Amino acid sequence: MEIQKVFLAESEIPRQWYNIQADMPTPLQPPLNPATGQPVGPDDLAPIFPMNLIEQEVSTERWIDIPDEVLEKFLLWRPTPLQRATALEKYLDTPAKIYFKDESVSPAGSHKPNTAIAQAYYNKAFGIKRLATETGAGQWGCALSLGCSMFGLELKVYMVRVSYEQKPYRQLMMKTWGAQCVPSPSSDTQFGRKLLEEDPDCSGSLGIAISEAIEDAVSTADTKYSLGSVLNHVMLHQTIIGLESQKQMKTVGEYPDVVIGCVGGGSNFAGLAFPFIRDKIHGKDLSIVAVEPTACPTITRGPFAYDFGDTAATTPLLPMFTLGHNFLPKPIHAGGLRYHGMSPLVSQLVRDKLVEPRSYDQLQSYEAGVIFARTQGTICAPETNHAIAAVIQEALKAKEEGKSKNILFNLSGHGLLDLSGYDAYLEGLLTDYHMPEDEIQEAVKVLNGYPKPK
Amino acid sequence: MEIQKVFLAESEIPRQWYNIQADMPTPLQPPLNPATGQPVGPDDLAPIFPMNLIEQEVSTERWIDIPDEVLEKFLLWRPTPLQRATALEKYLDTPAKIYFKDESVSPAGSHKPNTAIAQAYYNKAFGIKRLATETGAGQWGCALSLGCSMFGLELKVYMVRVSYEQKPYRQLMMKTWGAQCVPSPSSDTQFGRKLLEEDPDCSGSLGIAISEAIEDAVSTADTKYSLGSVLNHVMLHQTIIGLESQKQMKTVGEYPDVVIGCVGGGSNFAGLAFPFIRDKIHGKDLSIVAVEPTACPTITRGPFAYDFGDTAATTPLLPMFTLGHNFLPKPIHAGGLRYHGMSPLVSQLVRDKLVEPRSYDQLQSYEAGVIFARTQGTICAPETNHAIAAVIQEALKAKEEGKSKNILFNLSGHGLLDLSGYDAYLEGLLTDYHMPEDEIQEAVKVLNGYPKPK
Repeated sequence: MEIQKVFLAESEIPRQWYNIQADMPTPLQPPLNPATGQPVGPDDLAPIFPMNLIEQEVSTERWIDIPDEVLEKFLLWRPTPLQRATALEKYLDTPAKIYFKDESVSPAGSHKPNTAIAQAYYNKAFGIKRLATETGAGQWGCALSLGCSMFGLELKVYMVRVSYEQKPYRQLMMKTWGAQCVPSPSSDTQFGRKLLEEDPDCSGSLGIAISEAIEDAVSTADTKYSLGSVLNHVMLHQTIIGLESQKQMKTVGEYPDVVIGCVGGGSNFAGLAFPFIRDKIHGKDLSIVAVEPTACPTITRGPFAYDFGDTAATTPLLPMFTLGHNFLPKPIHAGGLRYHGMSPLVSQLVRDKLVEPRSYDQLQSYEAGVIFARTQGTICAPETNHAIAAVIQEALKAKEEGKSKNILFNLSGHGLLDLSGYDAYLEGLLTDYHMPEDEIQEAVKVLNGYPKPK
Repeated sequence: MEIQKVFLAESEIPRQWYNIQADMPTPLQPPLNPATGQPVGPDDLAPIFPMNLIEQEVSTERWIDIPDEVLEKFLLWRPTPLQRATALEKYLDTPAKIYFKDESVSPAGSHKPNTAIAQAYYNKAFGIKRLATETGAGQWGCALSLGCSMFGLELKVYMVRVSYEQKPYRQLMMKTWGAQCVPSPSSDTQFGRKLLEEDPDCSGSLGIAISEAIEDAVSTADTKYSLGSVLNHVMLHQTIIGLESQKQMKTVGEYPDVVIGCVGGGSNFAGLAFPFIRDKIHGKDLSIVAVEPTACPTITRGPFAYDFGDTAATTPLLPMFTLGHNFLPKPIHAGGLRYHGMSPLVSQLVRDKLVEPRSYDQLQSYEAGVIFARTQGTICAPETNHAIAAVIQEALKAKEEGKSKNILFNLSGHGLLDLSGYDAYLEGLLTDYHMPEDEIQEAVKVLNGYPKPK
């Protein structure tokens, strides 16, 4: 029998995160203050983030030490297994070897705790007693609840009301870890009360939830705000995924020809890919593929522009691929990929042709997910299924070409709390949505008034 | 940092199951035909099980080879990690070392696939094309759906209607793996139609669902029935848990002083404990603790008697601890522990004082589960929480006595699809239930007419 799983001894867990800002051929352009058009400095971020995380956000040091307190919590589920998908290979009858990094084994079921644990630790170390955050589909709210539970921080999660009602298990997970989760808009903030007065049945949005969490953080003593994707320090914390994978691939004497991850805000992709992109910058020949849904084609069809990170336009302007901060993607089931923008780091790497952007349909993704579940066993998150669709395409291409090839992808999370999408797919109720060009043009009009990046 | 996880290389996965029937000081008494009172032979079981599994059911060989085809599927998630719960130890401030075997990492989230994969394989090998089974809370239905998916068998699951409606995610898992799941009573069997005619709103029971599945199996071509606990071959398949654990404990140079598992039908407990009971039979000094809920006190308060395995009284009479096959436990949240009987193998080992039976309350169990989730991260199944309650008691006893001690328990499953119990607990809505003696006496009256075991 061929070896299917590669474990890494705990003693081999990476002790440093990799900061790709040290190696990027084109440095990141600064975030801008929307009022002045001037670069935002660390002090501008101090009301919402602790200074130790702001330092990481702007750092250009290549390696940043992982604190022992964080490593100790990582060891609850890390190093995660690297696995060979031999049953899938056999099903596809491909000469390609398919490897995946299994981030679904965390207590929250996804890669998100990698940064949640770190952010909880740094806030605690800075003397913060309480965090506020938002969550859409619920993955991030769960991960930060776990993180805060580990370090004894209070947490309040503003969860988009429609998700709060559709996904009761998510808020029960948060509750079990001791966090408070309220549907947003809530009557707990000024902004929420205003919206509820106008429309008591308002179903909420991620933009509204962010605004409530930020208002909570700036108006409550000892409280900061926390974000689960997009920002540089979040990408940094996730690089432990790729650093472990590199050690594990080395153990089996292989190196990937293609590295694949799905992208919403960019964090699970960055986590796996950045250490490999470093190799690519230094001359290694491999493809790095970022997969998004056709229904939210940020990096495949959006412009690179300065835009707000949130719908309510409260963040600094970030240089990134974007469909405009008012863009509301069709309600596809991969909630974590329905984001109008993209991590500035990932965006710059796409511009520099170090990352190849691709988009896949919802139906193709679920088809891939069902094949994976019925061969490899694991029922993946709908987001992850987009990566698997690309993996299957690459494996079938290898078969056509009669070439062996190593494919590595990130199994970013399981789908046990997101099964209604599978049901809709199996019942033939799902449809694809390709954005017409005029809709994209309409959505990005909002960007016209802002400064332009180089 | 202390080592928290002990991985086992895939090459070290056990190649044989351990059959405790070869070592038991008192041999198992035979199952009886209720009509004749005579021992049931292999041929009597042939209408519902394939002969290769019947042979395992009655075998007294000590070691039984695991077929390569089964091992190959096990490698999708096995060997599972053995983990040290250092965060829990620290929280309890105990000198005890707490280890757990993590069976929650299977694609179905529990230990159940260990036998589901094996049963699907043996049925396939025997030429069977389709299986029928029942499921209560849904864990077994999910596991067998996975197993049948792996070997290309059709599966129909009769799921107790009240669970079917309360736990929609469970049937969506089954559907994703390609199984058909219907609420029971269903209009697909004669017995189901009869019940629905009498009461169209009948909410079902495990006994009814078993009767429908057996009727389906005996009346449909190329179809057999499959059971997820209680029987000898099921216990056998689960012993891979304990065999792996023994190798892993050896790796860290330790041996358990106490081995703990929760018991419903007995299979996760047997899986971990049987290989250690073998050592105990051969003179090793350790305690083996089986934990059940006070609301369903089969081995702590029930008589040892011949009784039916199912409520509808269709199985052979089995020699076991039982509360009577008509006993309907109060609806506590640990659905997997609400079984009137107990595996005959586990029952006999309790009689021979090789296993110490204990019962714990629901509230104490959830309290233990919440402590575990907030220290170790993992949210466990309500069934597993009963084992954790015993672990915490043992660890605190070690603290009182100022003695170090190795405690090993089976983390039989995660609780991500069973969160409503946590909610009820955290909201203060749960209550305990200690069965009054007269209720037990009333329930076991049904046993009076049957033959008595020795």
